[in-house]
Amino acid sequence: MKKTISQTIPTDFERIFHPQNIAIIGVSAKDGGTGFGSGMFRALKAMGFDGKIFPVNPKGGNLDELQIYKQVEDIPEKVDFAIITVAAKLVPEVLEGCRQKGIEGAQILSSGFSELGTQAGKELEKKIQQIAAAGIRVVGPNCFGIYCPKSGLTLLPGPDLSRQTGSVAFLSQSGGMAIDLAHKGKWMGIRFSKVVSFGNGADLRETELLQYLADDPETKVISMYIEGIKDGDAFFESIKYTSKKKPVIVCKGGLSQAGQRTVASHTASMGGSRVIWQSVLKQVNAISVQDLNELAEAALAFSLLPSGIFKNISVIGGGGALGVSACDAAEALGIEIPLFSTEQQESIGKFLPKPGSSAINPIDVANPFVPPQALKEILLQAAKDSRVDLQIIVSLLYHYKVMATAMGLKVAQVAPFRELADAIRDVVKTTGKPVVVVLPNPKKGLDDLDLTEMLVLARREFLERGLPVFDELPDALRAIGHVNGYFGQRNADNE
Amino acid sequence: MKKTISQTIPTDFERIFHPQNIAIIGVSAKDGGTGFGSGMFRALKAMGFDGKIFPVNPKGGNLDELQIYKQVEDIPEKVDFAIITVAAKLVPEVLEGCRQKGIEGAQILSSGFSELGTQAGKELEKKIQQIAAAGIRVVGPNCFGIYCPKSGLTLLPGPDLSRQTGSVAFLSQSGGMAIDLAHKGKWMGIRFSKVVSFGNGADLRETELLQYLADDPETKVISMYIEGIKDGDAFFESIKYTSKKKPVIVCKGGLSQAGQRTVASHTASMGGSRVIWQSVLKQVNAISVQDLNELAEAALAFSLLPSGIFKNISVIGGGGALGVSACDAAEALGIEIPLFSTEQQESIGKFLPKPGSSAINPIDVANPFVPPQALKEILLQAAKDSRVDLQIIVSLLYHYKVMATAMGLKVAQVAPFRELADAIRDVVKTTGKPVVVVLPNPKKGLDDLDLTEMLVLARREFLERGLPVFDELPDALRAIGHVNGYFGQRNADNE
Repeated sequence: MKKTISQTIPTDFERIFHPQNIAIIGVSAKDGGTGFGSGMFRALKAMGFDGKIFPVNPKGGNLDELQIYKQVEDIPEKVDFAIITVAAKLVPEVLEGCRQKGIEGAQILSSGFSELGTQAGKELEKKIQQIAAAGIRVVGPNCFGIYCPKSGLTLLPGPDLSRQTGSVAFLSQSGGMAIDLAHKGKWMGIRFSKVVSFGNGADLRETELLQYLADDPETKVISMYIEGIKDGDAFFESIKYTSKKKPVIVCKGGLSQAGQRTVASHTASMGGSRVIWQSVLKQVNAISVQDLNELAEAALAFSLLPSGIFKNISVIGGGGALGVSACDAAEALGIEIPLFSTEQQESIGKFLPKPGSSAINPIDVANPFVPPQALKEILLQAAKDSRVDLQIIVSLLYHYKVMATAMGLKVAQVAPFRELADAIRDVVKTTGKPVVVVLPNPKKGLDDLDLTEMLVLARREFLERGLPVFDELPDALRAIGHVNGYFGQRNADNE
Repeated sequence: MKKTISQTIPTDFERIFHPQNIAIIGVSAKDGGTGFGSGMFRALKAMGFDGKIFPVNPKGGNLDELQIYKQVEDIPEKVDFAIITVAAKLVPEVLEGCRQKGIEGAQILSSGFSELGTQAGKELEKKIQQIAAAGIRVVGPNCFGIYCPKSGLTLLPGPDLSRQTGSVAFLSQSGGMAIDLAHKGKWMGIRFSKVVSFGNGADLRETELLQYLADDPETKVISMYIEGIKDGDAFFESIKYTSKKKPVIVCKGGLSQAGQRTVASHTASMGGSRVIWQSVLKQVNAISVQDLNELAEAALAFSLLPSGIFKNISVIGGGGALGVSACDAAEALGIEIPLFSTEQQESIGKFLPKPGSSAINPIDVANPFVPPQALKEILLQAAKDSRVDLQIIVSLLYHYKVMATAMGLKVAQVAPFRELADAIRDVVKTTGKPVVVVLPNPKKGLDDLDLTEMLVLARREFLERGLPVFDELPDALRAIGHVNGYFGQRNADNE
């Protein structure tokens, strides 16, 4: 591992991600403070951060019965981590105070540094780097900070993120991407170990954070949004090392001309050509994704599916066109949907309504009201084909809305989503083969808000049973394709 | 135009799509009938179908105070259209009765024909073709029928489709695709002239329906889901003719090997190779899409944007990464996001919060709470660049959830979505340049159902003002790319 300039003493990342106490520098004494500092204070309270919080503001005063210290140096205890939200020009002095106080790390949420493109901005950022090198680790500036569900650290403005900890890490040059993914993860079922929005990355940034995560036992899947990298050789050495241990999903922004221009004003980084990036990412077996949704879906698949390759799958759904689409999308990803034997088609067919259904694989159940117990039998039968590595069920729960309306009920009272979740969990237990759920919803208007709610509840039930859920079949297939691609290459490299 | 065998007398499509009265053959006398016939009867009632409905069942009886006729021939009035839902083996006799009654067209919802792959199924379908050729037009069998908002005809099972008529037609071999698109259209803002699920297409199918729509004044945009075509030459002649008049969006299923196998059991059609399809569609200037979402988004763009090419755009959003992504996605589609002049950046910058914002294009508003009036000024300023053909605003309304929670309110009480819709409509009026709205939502969990509801309300407000709305920026760009591709080629062909 390469050492950065500040690593004369190894960084104690434990104090940064799981601080016993923190200082927030730049809170407003007024309750209704609208600045970043007061926002972070309220957000940490809402998240139930376990440690002590020391608010800091030169004006002093009180906040929620807490004394506001005039400067960090006045805090009578050891402090692990600092959140700095003061105006850019004041940041160096405040950061130096933190360093002298023995604080291990600070996140600087303030903007107004190198991303401005001005000489003054660049000089301020250089000062930050010099102070960091003298002995304090810095996340930012121009960032949304750290989210760590285990400790209760949260991003700006994230009072409502999940406290459930998990195996997915996200490193993001963009604060917006970080907060969006943290929110998406909450309902999609992605549980995070650590999310770091590092903005301009004056000190801690992609390479060193990746090195840390490579050996972090809490992290099993790493995802990244990068606009530009500082030291290409070190980064690719690091990603190569890491990819051998765990999947690294990379979304690279700024591969277009206009994108590079925008990158410069966003996080003051240099982009890089599309072709070079794609070939290098392939070479190091990183998983390359186009946007945040694809990244989120890949992270979900890597975190909830067992490690392995799912070359042959069965697909159970309703409507022949869905099966046709499944085949088309699967083929493009190198996934096969093998034709079942006549014998097996017959055993599956026993549980299918007639006419209109088909058991060839994809299985077309024809009628959306096939009960969960029958779907369970169909899945059990389909899994008997030894070629099948994984099953996808496209749930047609949204069709229950018509039935509910006819009965004068809300759809959650009618749709058997809990029974279906139980049935699928039982299939996974019995067969040892994972099942992926697709939960489409073509009805999202005002008349169908109860349907939206039911599907949110259904998703939760599936996730609680360890079943990954995707909105659409192509999304699920693409995510499985990423898992196959990664483990296929890793296995080949190990041979 | 080629004539099909049955066109010795021209088809009166008016009687088929806007029938004065219809017979439903196969209703159950019992109120709670669960078959297709009773389902269609209830669906048509729920849709408020304007004409008379004559229920038919050999057992006779009454349904909702209506007499059930034992056979079509007993109905004492002229009948325009029939819906046939009886078991497959009874269909030929029933259809022949309809023909003798002088009914113009019938949709056969029953399955159990050529899609079974059996000799018996094929023979039954051949009989349907023979009767059709003798003088009645047939939609189906093995289909979900016709949806026509103007007349109130609806698909199976569609009691809850929109009655708002519009300019988009959809022809679909798949019933599932037809009903899904009809539902998606309802909240996405796609308004339909005619949707036809034609299933096995024993009589009326892609080519002839396309010819009809080419000259249908109600239809301005045509979309299709095709699994296989019957007469390739006639179809491509027809699509070439049609594409010169209006856009034809084509989603072709079954381009993979497994997909072709599934097509055979679904609608008994033959697929065709991916390469051939793609090159032919390109040659005739049809818009080729991969899936139903891409089709829906393209249809929305074609129906709500003025005819033309939008080569240069401005993008207004929040967060630098969003701008970076916009540039990357736009470049791949040949759309440019031109850098604004320093002068213009300054005039835009007056309305932007500092620091953290950027006015270079994409415009990063930095703070999600920039009021609608300021966004209006920013859009007005950006439109002053004569290169800008269209503007995209990525609305950050979802951020108001945090504010609402802090205030103890529902987000719809706090987020200024109506003001924003008014402001954008005013910009379009003033500048004459279309504005496309992107309405992302990373928060879709149980705690955020009020946010989902607010965004549904917001979408409706935007749509009511003629503003197309997309979920994600790449979706919007892709749809604009389709519009550019179509009109670019059409203009080149006309030169």
